[in-house]
Amino acid sequence: MKVVFEGRKFRVLSGEVTLPSGKRVIRDIVDFGKSVVILPIKGDDVFIIRQYRPAVGDWIYELPAGTLEEGEDPLECAKRELVEEIGYEAGKLEPMFRMYLSPGYSNEYMYAYLATQLEYVGEKPEYGEEIRVVRMSFDEALDMVRNGLVEDAKSIATILYYAFFIRGGEGDI
Amino acid sequence: MKVVFEGRKFRVLSGEVTLPSGKRVIRDIVDFGKSVVILPIKGDDVFIIRQYRPAVGDWIYELPAGTLEEGEDPLECAKRELVEEIGYEAGKLEPMFRMYLSPGYSNEYMYAYLATQLEYVGEKPEYGEEIRVVRMSFDEALDMVRNGLVEDAKSIATILYYAFFIRGGEGDI
Repeated sequence: MKVVFEGRKFRVLSGEVTLPSGKRVIRDIVDFGKSVVILPIKGDDVFIIRQYRPAVGDWIYELPAGTLEEGEDPLECAKRELVEEIGYEAGKLEPMFRMYLSPGYSNEYMYAYLATQLEYVGEKPEYGEEIRVVRMSFDEALDMVRNGLVEDAKSIATILYYAFFIRGGEGDI
Repeated sequence: MKVVFEGRKFRVLSGEVTLPSGKRVIRDIVDFGKSVVILPIKGDDVFIIRQYRPAVGDWIYELPAGTLEEGEDPLECAKRELVEEIGYEAGKLEPMFRMYLSPGYSNEYMYAYLATQLEYVGEKPEYGEEIRVVRMSFDEALDMVRNGLVEDAKSIATILYYAFFIRGGEGDI
């Protein structure tokens, strides 16, 4: 495959791909790499952010998240993004699950972490990130998923994974 | 913004964006459009597909899904993709929720449907789609989410949304 676009956060590859059957097809692929999403839990509360996203032209509710820097491992990245975006350091960061975001055209692969034992150290927003931090009860966050106020796939998946498999009491990860 | 790449399924736009604060930043955006994901339920069973995805170089488990064609509405698209990918026609297709897949760099916006009253009419795979249909109990699918065998954000979100908000009995949508 050939690099047809080289951007700031991703590049685009294009060319012929051989499928398992031997068939050949032309595909365009977003080469994005790895990322993290973090569920920050403090007692019965969760921190969600409301962030302006130029790609969709709107403010949306999301969990804190970010992209791995060169050479960074997912755990370090989760630690860093949590401080940058909500201003809390996590005493405990546990892996929950992993997911492709748009495997039809992007290789983005995301690690979901549960962050607990949170201590406030102050936000460090990156230039161009317009973020408001919202602290609410986890039950309110669940209602926002149910009612369609949270419209972000990684956040819906992560909130519900925690609600269904961890918080319910079955709960070891 | 300027079109910097024109592909088969998406294009890439690049240029200056004004944030709500008035700050200006440069962004690259994947202009993908709208898509659907379908949860096909028959009795206690669900249909999942195992599909080869060139973008990630692997077979992964996913719910049936697809992209709106020119002028198509999401409901028609869900109907069409369900037949193409698993070979069933749905007597009932109900909207569940909507989600952005990667709002950091893509405008893809996906509609999730619950498909019931399924009747077999035969698959019609598109050229280049290598798919195996797997029928399993919904509980097995939940286990696959829990154990990390389902690693696809839209599928995790949709399976858990159904499990938590609909199947549980709270259940009107």
